[in-house]
Amino acid sequence: MFHKFKKKTLFTPGPLSTSYKTKKSTLIDLGSRDVEFIKINKLLSAELLKIGKAKDYLCIPLQGSGTFGLESILSTLLNKKSNILIISNGIYGDRLVKICRKIKKKFHLIKFNENKSFSKVKIERHIKKNKSITHIGLVHCETSSGILNPLEEMALLSKKYKKKLIVDAMSSFGGININIQKNNLEALVSSANKCLEGIPGFCFCIVKKKSLSKCKENSSSLALDLYGQWQGFLKNNQWRFTPPTHSIIALFSAIEQLKKEGGVNKRNKRYKKNYLTLVKGMEKLGFDTYLKANLRSPIIVSFKFLKDTKFNFISFYKELSNLGFLIYPGTTTKEKTFRIGCIGNINSKNINLLLKAIQKTLLKMKIRYL
Amino acid sequence: MFHKFKKKTLFTPGPLSTSYKTKKSTLIDLGSRDVEFIKINKLLSAELLKIGKAKDYLCIPLQGSGTFGLESILSTLLNKKSNILIISNGIYGDRLVKICRKIKKKFHLIKFNENKSFSKVKIERHIKKNKSITHIGLVHCETSSGILNPLEEMALLSKKYKKKLIVDAMSSFGGININIQKNNLEALVSSANKCLEGIPGFCFCIVKKKSLSKCKENSSSLALDLYGQWQGFLKNNQWRFTPPTHSIIALFSAIEQLKKEGGVNKRNKRYKKNYLTLVKGMEKLGFDTYLKANLRSPIIVSFKFLKDTKFNFISFYKELSNLGFLIYPGTTTKEKTFRIGCIGNINSKNINLLLKAIQKTLLKMKIRYL
Repeated sequence: MFHKFKKKTLFTPGPLSTSYKTKKSTLIDLGSRDVEFIKINKLLSAELLKIGKAKDYLCIPLQGSGTFGLESILSTLLNKKSNILIISNGIYGDRLVKICRKIKKKFHLIKFNENKSFSKVKIERHIKKNKSITHIGLVHCETSSGILNPLEEMALLSKKYKKKLIVDAMSSFGGININIQKNNLEALVSSANKCLEGIPGFCFCIVKKKSLSKCKENSSSLALDLYGQWQGFLKNNQWRFTPPTHSIIALFSAIEQLKKEGGVNKRNKRYKKNYLTLVKGMEKLGFDTYLKANLRSPIIVSFKFLKDTKFNFISFYKELSNLGFLIYPGTTTKEKTFRIGCIGNINSKNINLLLKAIQKTLLKMKIRYL
Repeated sequence: MFHKFKKKTLFTPGPLSTSYKTKKSTLIDLGSRDVEFIKINKLLSAELLKIGKAKDYLCIPLQGSGTFGLESILSTLLNKKSNILIISNGIYGDRLVKICRKIKKKFHLIKFNENKSFSKVKIERHIKKNKSITHIGLVHCETSSGILNPLEEMALLSKKYKKKLIVDAMSSFGGININIQKNNLEALVSSANKCLEGIPGFCFCIVKKKSLSKCKENSSSLALDLYGQWQGFLKNNQWRFTPPTHSIIALFSAIEQLKKEGGVNKRNKRYKKNYLTLVKGMEKLGFDTYLKANLRSPIIVSFKFLKDTKFNFISFYKELSNLGFLIYPGTTTKEKTFRIGCIGNINSKNINLLLKAIQKTLLKMKIRYL
């Protein structure tokens, strides 16, 4: 008896809805040490560097989810003298702290509320006071709330104080333009299954070549040693350990489709349209957004639970799931929220279908909307 | 312009040839936090425990290749008092040592030649001399040479001296019967894309529940902390970090097919037939196996380079690849070898087609075979 899955549209921050073309590209088994696969990997790294406008950088893919890439970057780039200032306003910022704690790297933490942007003044004051800080770490788009953090402002600050900036751009790379070279980033980590619209299985680290070459001994992990991973590729163009061949082909196909769509700016426009359609429609149905408009990203939106006592998120979620629409639970700590993603192979038509399903669900729950 | 891949049959130790059904099962995007996906994961763990005949064990999947699982097991199960005796006769045994070195866990090493089995006497002597040894670590099938190591004998030894046995069964689990419970293994690590014939993307650790529950603080990694991974599943049945949803569906489908084939014993028969057909055919073509018959596994076979000066492995490999057959380079250190895998969605017909292609290639290289 083979399990039958019901096809649903995903409004999630990844794994997300991918195109049929992307999924279909994986209907082949490639040899992990074969010339054809090696060629694909080289092309893929070059494309990712191009998307990030990163000239003097290396793009090193790594097996596992984005967190594996983040741990690998922190474990490899930070040495005993390093001291990273982590700026956090959400779960993913806090995860950088968790990693540093586990892998025993020195860090400072400045925490902001989940619904607030960074205070430049506060950060600047902290940097001035703590001369031992060598790096700054932050999350570009906090999918826990959907907030978009001020990457370029932080890049300027890092330049001013000569700190090395490490960016978790997991959910923004490919959907929001990031100029890695111009912003002089030390490193950026992202994943195959977010705005690039590939399937999950690996992440990638874009890192200054000059910096990585000095990091031979830093990592206390074999699998997550990014220097070792790099040396593996240098040796024979092959992954050190079994690569997720199908996920790699999928990303290769997905990037061809990104180019066909017109690149990151065009994709950003599609996501923005999704986002605007979503917020407008949800507000009409009586939902308030968790964040103020100027803080929101076109990646994912947090909505507050309805105050109506008949609103029950689990029923709401299940009903939408039955109708073929997967939304995302919330994670903000101070207010009850749920999330709807705007990224992936979806457009405003899909958003409108979702809105109709939400309307139907509210009616079923006997909740009156405005 | 979309890249066109030529379909080839893989005679590799994984990623390997998978069935079309397995690949096709991945043509869907599942939500990583959705009930349906959660259900699949639970079923999958239960099936894997059943295959390993492991009752009092947990099956914990982990993102990344098999090495990620091995590092996770060693990093989580070994504490400051632990001291693991690693028995190695190949690259994968040596990798266990590399991991212990990197993650700073105490170890002893007994090394045997790549073409020799373990000497029980030597190991027993070492254990008796070194009372501080708490664990034993070994690789079941060393795909570097194809040697099958004596798992049950080592399990008996471990029982006798009350050592905890950790087994890298990456390339054997699902293709060779392993009774985890009966052999009282402490832990076993394997991967989705070997004898279970799934696609790559994750591995899994089968570990004694009693043991893992005592390992809260051991790991110095966040991503590779198996205790943390377990706690994540306990909390909400979800993966802590983005799971490779497509690889998971693929393994689920592959295991349904394994059951339909008749289970591990039937699969083992198919692999053995592949192996016997291969060796017989290759010997007819003038190739010698690297290992003596009693040491070989039905997983992968190492063949010595032909002594004929006209034999050039790179040309040989390329020609076979052009004909649609991917074999595997060798890694043994003392003799020049190449490898041919017997596992994956292939049967003796595929082996015969490969043999014909090899014959054709030798003729083209103007090498006379017997």
